[in-house]
Amino acid sequence: TRAGVPEAILADGKTPTEVADLATTAVETTGRAIATRLTADHVTAVRDHLGREHADVTVDYDERARMLVAHTPAFERPSLAATVGIVTAGTSDAIPAGEAAIIAREMGASVERVDDVGVAGIARLLDRLEELREYDVLIVAAGREGALPTVVAGLVDTPIIGLPVSTGYGYGGEGEAALLGMLQSCTALTAVNVDAGFTAGAQAALIARAVDAAWDADPA
Amino acid sequence: TRAGVPEAILADGKTPTEVADLATTAVETTGRAIATRLTADHVTAVRDHLGREHADVTVDYDERARMLVAHTPAFERPSLAATVGIVTAGTSDAIPAGEAAIIAREMGASVERVDDVGVAGIARLLDRLEELREYDVLIVAAGREGALPTVVAGLVDTPIIGLPVSTGYGYGGEGEAALLGMLQSCTALTAVNVDAGFTAGAQAALIARAVDAAWDADPA
Amino acid sequence: TRAGVPEAILADGKTPTEVADLATTAVETTGRAIATRLTADHVTAVRDHLGREHADVTVDYDERARMLVAHTPAFERPSLAATVGIVTAGTSDAIPAGEAAIIAREMGASVERVDDVGVAGIARLLDRLEELREYDVLIVAAGREGALPTVVAGLVDTPIIGLPVSTGYGYGGEGEAALLGMLQSCTALTAVNVDAGFTAGAQAALIARAVDAAWDADPA
Amino acid sequence: TRAGVPEAILADGKTPTEVADLATTAVETTGRAIATRLTADHVTAVRDHLGREHADVTVDYDERARMLVAHTPAFERPSLAATVGIVTAGTSDAIPAGEAAIIAREMGASVERVDDVGVAGIARLLDRLEELREYDVLIVAAGREGALPTVVAGLVDTPIIGLPVSTGYGYGGEGEAALLGMLQSCTALTAVNVDAGFTAGAQAALIARAVDAAWDADPA
Amino acid sequence: TRAGVPEAILADGKTPTEVADLATTAVETTGRAIATRLTADHVTAVRDHLGREHADVTVDYDERARMLVAHTPAFERPSLAATVGIVTAGTSDAIPAGEAAIIAREMGASVERVDDVGVAGIARLLDRLEELREYDVLIVAAGREGALPTVVAGLVDTPIIGLPVSTGYGYGGEGEAALLGMLQSCTALTAVNVDAGFTAGAQAALIARAVDAAWDADPA
Amino acid sequence: TRAGVPEAILADGKTPTEVADLATTAVETTGRAIATRLTADHVTAVRDHLGREHADVTVDYDERARMLVAHTPAFERPSLAATVGIVTAGTSDAIPAGEAAIIAREMGASVERVDDVGVAGIARLLDRLEELREYDVLIVAAGREGALPTVVAGLVDTPIIGLPVSTGYGYGGEGEAALLGMLQSCTALTAVNVDAGFTAGAQAALIARAVDAAWDADPA
Amino acid sequence: TRAGVPEAILADGKTPTEVADLATTAVETTGRAIATRLTADHVTAVRDHLGREHADVTVDYDERARMLVAHTPAFERPSLAATVGIVTAGTSDAIPAGEAAIIAREMGASVERVDDVGVAGIARLLDRLEELREYDVLIVAAGREGALPTVVAGLVDTPIIGLPVSTGYGYGGEGEAALLGMLQSCTALTAVNVDAGFTAGAQAALIARAVDAAWDADPA
Amino acid sequence: TRAGVPEAILADGKTPTEVADLATTAVETTGRAIATRLTADHVTAVRDHLGREHADVTVDYDERARMLVAHTPAFERPSLAATVGIVTAGTSDAIPAGEAAIIAREMGASVERVDDVGVAGIARLLDRLEELREYDVLIVAAGREGALPTVVAGLVDTPIIGLPVSTGYGYGGEGEAALLGMLQSCTALTAVNVDAGFTAGAQAALIARAVDAAWDADPA
Ligand SMILES: Nc1ncnc2c1ncn2[C@@H]1O[C@H](COP(=O)(O)O)[C@@H](O)[C@H]1O
Ligand SMILES: Nc1ncnc2c1ncn2[C@@H]1O[C@H](COP(=O)(O)O)[C@@H](O)[C@H]1O
Ligand SMILES: Nc1ncnc2c1ncn2[C@@H]1O[C@H](COP(=O)(O)O)[C@@H](O)[C@H]1O
Ligand SMILES: Nc1ncnc2c1ncn2[C@@H]1O[C@H](COP(=O)(O)O)[C@@H](O)[C@H]1O
Ligand SMILES: [Mg+2]
Ligand SMILES: [Mg+2]
Ligand SMILES: [Mg+2]
Ligand SMILES: [Mg+2]
Ligand SMILES: [Mg+2]
Ligand SMILES: [Mg+2]
Ligand SMILES: [Mg+2]
Ligand SMILES: [Mg+2]
Repeated sequence: TRAGVPEAILADGKTPTEVADLATTAVETTGRAIATRLTADHVTAVRDHLGREHADVTVDYDERARMLVAHTPAFERPSLAATVGIVTAGTSDAIPAGEAAIIAREMGASVERVDDVGVAGIARLLDRLEELREYDVLIVAAGREGALPTVVAGLVDTPIIGLPVSTGYGYGGEGEAALLGMLQSCTALTAVNVDAGFTAGAQAALIARAVDAAWDADPA
Repeated sequence: TRAGVPEAILADGKTPTEVADLATTAVETTGRAIATRLTADHVTAVRDHLGREHADVTVDYDERARMLVAHTPAFERPSLAATVGIVTAGTSDAIPAGEAAIIAREMGASVERVDDVGVAGIARLLDRLEELREYDVLIVAAGREGALPTVVAGLVDTPIIGLPVSTGYGYGGEGEAALLGMLQSCTALTAVNVDAGFTAGAQAALIARAVDAAWDADPA
Repeated sequence: TRAGVPEAILADGKTPTEVADLATTAVETTGRAIATRLTADHVTAVRDHLGREHADVTVDYDERARMLVAHTPAFERPSLAATVGIVTAGTSDAIPAGEAAIIAREMGASVERVDDVGVAGIARLLDRLEELREYDVLIVAAGREGALPTVVAGLVDTPIIGLPVSTGYGYGGEGEAALLGMLQSCTALTAVNVDAGFTAGAQAALIARAVDAAWDADPA
Repeated sequence: TRAGVPEAILADGKTPTEVADLATTAVETTGRAIATRLTADHVTAVRDHLGREHADVTVDYDERARMLVAHTPAFERPSLAATVGIVTAGTSDAIPAGEAAIIAREMGASVERVDDVGVAGIARLLDRLEELREYDVLIVAAGREGALPTVVAGLVDTPIIGLPVSTGYGYGGEGEAALLGMLQSCTALTAVNVDAGFTAGAQAALIARAVDAAWDADPA
Repeated sequence: TRAGVPEAILADGKTPTEVADLATTAVETTGRAIATRLTADHVTAVRDHLGREHADVTVDYDERARMLVAHTPAFERPSLAATVGIVTAGTSDAIPAGEAAIIAREMGASVERVDDVGVAGIARLLDRLEELREYDVLIVAAGREGALPTVVAGLVDTPIIGLPVSTGYGYGGEGEAALLGMLQSCTALTAVNVDAGFTAGAQAALIARAVDAAWDADPA
Repeated sequence: TRAGVPEAILADGKTPTEVADLATTAVETTGRAIATRLTADHVTAVRDHLGREHADVTVDYDERARMLVAHTPAFERPSLAATVGIVTAGTSDAIPAGEAAIIAREMGASVERVDDVGVAGIARLLDRLEELREYDVLIVAAGREGALPTVVAGLVDTPIIGLPVSTGYGYGGEGEAALLGMLQSCTALTAVNVDAGFTAGAQAALIARAVDAAWDADPA
Repeated sequence: TRAGVPEAILADGKTPTEVADLATTAVETTGRAIATRLTADHVTAVRDHLGREHADVTVDYDERARMLVAHTPAFERPSLAATVGIVTAGTSDAIPAGEAAIIAREMGASVERVDDVGVAGIARLLDRLEELREYDVLIVAAGREGALPTVVAGLVDTPIIGLPVSTGYGYGGEGEAALLGMLQSCTALTAVNVDAGFTAGAQAALIARAVDAAWDADPA
Repeated sequence: TRAGVPEAILADGKTPTEVADLATTAVETTGRAIATRLTADHVTAVRDHLGREHADVTVDYDERARMLVAHTPAFERPSLAATVGIVTAGTSDAIPAGEAAIIAREMGASVERVDDVGVAGIARLLDRLEELREYDVLIVAAGREGALPTVVAGLVDTPIIGLPVSTGYGYGGEGEAALLGMLQSCTALTAVNVDAGFTAGAQAALIARAVDAAWDADPA
């Protein structure tokens, strides 16, 4: 496996059979399969293949995040003493935010969601400030309201990963406005690509792991 | 003159002599000359020409805004019963913001500045909310912190003109990030081009004039 | 609700059920629901949900503008003493122009349409100049004939909002040519994003409200 | 020589000596040298070289167009029975417009200028309509007011070449707004590249030559 | 009608009924209807409407060019003493080339096609040089082989209109490579937008008309 | 101050006096001043001002990173039990890498440099793998060799921040190639804007602080 | 035929009948037909036509590469004493890689595949280094892992052709990231357009032919 | 050293002292130093350093190519039995073409120049066809006449590397038009980045080496 981050199958551009085969192999070799950006056909194929050959494997599919996770009964997910907070402005941002949440959890982090806090109605965000300050790392998703990560970064001291989302239309509507806004931010943000919830979640979990390692390693 | 908006000379790309000649003609025909984006050489040339031929003309040059205004003693600036608020995040935004302020004043509007209120330190903005709500129209300048107009629009009911500024570096650093952010905003913003303080100020003054006309016309 | 501008549901990217649920909540809490960019399926779902639970609610759907408005019998639309003029060059521009018209009306402005006045046949525009001068604020839509707002701004003293439209093909055919033309205009235009009729209409209504407030407030 | 269009030296990116050598060769082989985009140093070098070796050669340098033409006493410029009209909105457009005018004249066309007719002040354009209709082909230069060629094309039946100019600033300010506007025009325009006055003038002269040939060839 | 160029209906983005109505009005007022970019449904609707109400109208539909022309029996197409040559490299270019051919013919020009002459096999082009030199104006279409207009312009003295075509894939494959190549050409080319066969054909016909006028006007 | 990240003065676009004034204020209020992207004139002005009024202040200027740090004798830099590794391919990357190193140190992190390990000579990178695995967070700078962060991420489990650098020329040479490569990476990278060493270093220090907090908080 | 490279039919944008006709002609005149980017319908049409008229022709269709080759029994493929190695990172890259392999083979080169060697898992690549060094020319395909050609070029002395692939999503996801990365590489790479497997394979075969010619020509 | 290609120092962005130091080290360790894109100051510094410490080293500086090569008396350049042809359209292309020539020669290839053969005057190219066919590999430079490599590839069977050059102005004038044209070519071209003469020359030499190896290896 790739160092630290579990392999995931990007279903987009693969046939249902190809995805099902890759998922079966993953389950057999690592006890777990993770796939992203599936269609209904992909999901059916994975369930069929796994059901036939590995009846005891649990298959979870999250429709909003279009993400699938399968575990053998024996598989034990790691557990890290660190929490990832995932902040969104609205329903559309929820899709890559879901992707981020699932991979971070699979990598062992605790995950909390802070939804419906947009920059156009700043009060809702200010109300939840204390909560935001408790997390070890934050992912802040933003589509048309691309400024959300900057506003949050001005209010908390946590490392923040900006996740631009391709909601919107017209000029810059494929997420470029949000991405550029994050890259220009004068706060200490980093960013992932448009809709790259998987990458944001995986990086957040790597940070969670670094935090967890400090807890463990502590000699005291 | 162009309907409603006084002619202005864009000095950029013109020789000092050309600008001085145009300014002299403007003073002679309308009692006023307005020029933008001047260098020191342009200013000297205008002062020299006007000083020689029209010794009683007042010449004001605003170095930060790189904008010059000259009036004959007889010239009477219009006066409108409406106020334009101009909001900026930092010193760099101050340049086109100054351009906006000067042209709006020349067109008769009252102008107030609300400086140093950026999205990365939202508290300063919240402190001045009552003040912001008193203006008839707002111009909100924003460079790297391109979200400022959206945040303000979420807090007040005033018409807002977004003014993107070319501070920043790297990808989107010529003001594109700010412009795209304003165009994607889910609030009721309009925008002008990057650094187009003149346009923003002139449009704000046209709105101020529409408001003023309602006061005047009122039958009561 | 967002300051000054009624909440609207952007149906694009949401399921029919999601839109119907959001519309029902809006009707229940504010007496009105507004939705944009609906498909036939969205409309049916909204009508079904509302018909079932709120039989007395009026549902209006404008097919050209793909925009839906629902009111409870008790709902009272505001009424402003100001008129928004909406100018278009042809049938294609009519879609976002319709969106602008509906939201401006919902916010209380009077709205007048001035259609079929393109720059390639300037005579039709000149014929309607007197009419154009009567409005308090103008929205000028423009697709391939992106110069229309500039030409109008050269003829009237009203504040003008440019609304670029994504008609056209080839290079710049997604509305970029029109948007860039408006941003470069040497008149006092502001612009909204390509096809952002809702934003243009909402901003026009905010200006109408500022004008109306002056009428009301007048001490005389 | 290139078929139909005289060779010209693009001085930009060449040393003064290189330009002077090329000009000398051109004069010796064809009786004429044409160079574009010269700096003062280029001009001096050309005058020095030619003065030394070909004292009877006439050297004309047009400072606004940054273009140089040299003729031997024996050289006879062609003369075509057709007129090219060149339309501009303002002083900045005058530079590539000058380039167009000079090459068209060198190729034998009559050339007339129609300056200061911009779209933001449409009246000046309408005043000169009769004149515009008399030319065989029109070049319409346009920078920030990129719509000018479309407006003209809506008023006359002449073939029109759009010449976009790199005046302006901010987004699209290097002439892209004007170029895209011409490419999207719904009139029968063609366009050349930004600032490509030489190309526009040469193409206009080729059209003038086609017209002239018809006069000549006429059997009657 | 627009000066010189017959009105045409751009079917793209209009419903079959809308196109059929516009075509009927065009036939009734001008004796002719021209429509571009139709689908099969558009064509059926036009035929049905016209068949019902104007049984004597001839309707021609060119499937390759997706262009429709209808004439009343009384309609008389103009006839110009000038020929437009249309050059293509391959089958894909044939689509906008067909559009150009049809509108040029409707405007009265003679039209000749020179197909299958690409830059990657220069011999075929050289073989037809004499023929190319006989036309009064040339349209040269080019997709992936964007250099064709430049090569032709190096060989003949005729005015040439470059018509970029959106064949190709990958970077620049939507016709931008061809368009940019034409704009950068160091020959006296002008260009129209990608796939804008209608514009190229109309402009060529305006040139043909200028040539024809010289024949007619000739006093001799 | 901004939450967690010390204020820094971006000297670019400010006059020497402005920068010196801001630095003086920073020293007086926080005991430290940090400035980036200074020219020699900026540095002289800061040294002069501070030397005159605050003779005991230490001023360090790093010429490669163009970054200045001033401390009062009383100022105590925080100290975090976490190390940031900064990886570069060559001398040009060293500039923003230096900026990152300095701000991370000012925020309390230990910082180690791993220089001259490019993808075109992978052996040097493999040699230093053990060292790389010891750091808590990595910043990987990359200009023309934009793949370096991906290669490193494939070899270690540490959170990695990609720092694109504007070395290179031609297409994509302003750092876009590197930025896009990082955004497309199929490893768990995040990225900052081109040349944004300050942002990368600050974010790395926030992660270091989260790690440090776990050490401290550890109950054991 | 085009010099050196066999003609191929680009099926994309052509009807099944058109492709079948072109294939039949190719078989009749050259003994072979090659077509790229076919759909199932294209393949059926080609098989039907050829089956009907040329029953002895062998038709091979490679579904992954979407490429078809037909030979008459008499056709003799050239055979070159040189080997092309084709390197890919994953399944998605396999499509244009397949296209490259087939055309290179048809032109006479030996072709070897080196699959599943990505930069994010550099070990697999290092394992196969000896093998890579044996080929005369390498094609290295790369989508999201655009750095692969640079890494390989740092390890071997063979001429390398970079083949960018349009896998990926978000900003730069259509293969631009990979293409730009190759163009910026500081190794001696050349590149073809995104997904242009045909071009890469044909160029590799031309190099193979140059190598083969040296073997043959050798006087010894 | 980089596999197969000698290290070269990119002087651009380095100080004269840095370049001189790197050159000295290169001479001491490999017997040769190669540097590109030097200014006069760089050259002086290199000559001074080397002159002082290594008086017997030969330093050659090619002003047109802005490239420097230094050899110790003992250094022996490799010699390959293969010739690289370098084709240009005009003087401006000569700069990167020179860079290509020098590095190819340093790597041991014979190099021949074929200058002044542009697409706008195809005859000069056809005249030199026999010569072109004799080379083992061709580099074809092209700026505004971006089609040259395609035209050449249609006439010869040699592998061709397209070298786009940043001559030109206006839209696409920084070499993008040429680069895109090469990427879209329907011949078997590969391309390097704009102005990347070094890369083109090095790749050509690697091909020359592959050819040379076949000569040598030949068993016969
Ligand atoms: N939605 C996603 N976004 C970004 N990376 C992903 C995603 N899904 C899978 N990946 C990564 O991409 C790699 C899979 O690519 P592939 O070989 O094309 O299936 C895996 O190693 C994952 O780490
Ligand atoms: N800084 C500026 N930004 C935008 N428009 C301006 C500016 N300065 C002047 N203008 C407008 O541009 C026109 C002058 O253009 P010009 O003819 O080039 O001097 C004037 O009518 C002004 O309305
Ligand atoms: N295919 C086409 N390409 C360019 N312009 C066209 C095309 N078809 C029609 N037009 C022009 O566009 C105008 C029609 O636009 P519309 O009002 O949208 O139907 C007509 O006046 C035509 O001159
Ligand atoms: N998939 C492909 N990618 C690049 N070039 C191709 C491809 N398929 C065919 N070609 C080339 O494009 C030319 C065919 O173009 P066309 O005339 O449009 O069929 C042929 O000469 C081939 O050399
Ligand atoms: Mg913070
Ligand atoms: Mg508001
Ligand atoms: Mg006006
Ligand atoms: Mg006309
Ligand atoms: Mg010619
Ligand atoms: Mg890793
Ligand atoms: Mg190598
Ligand atoms: Mg060839």
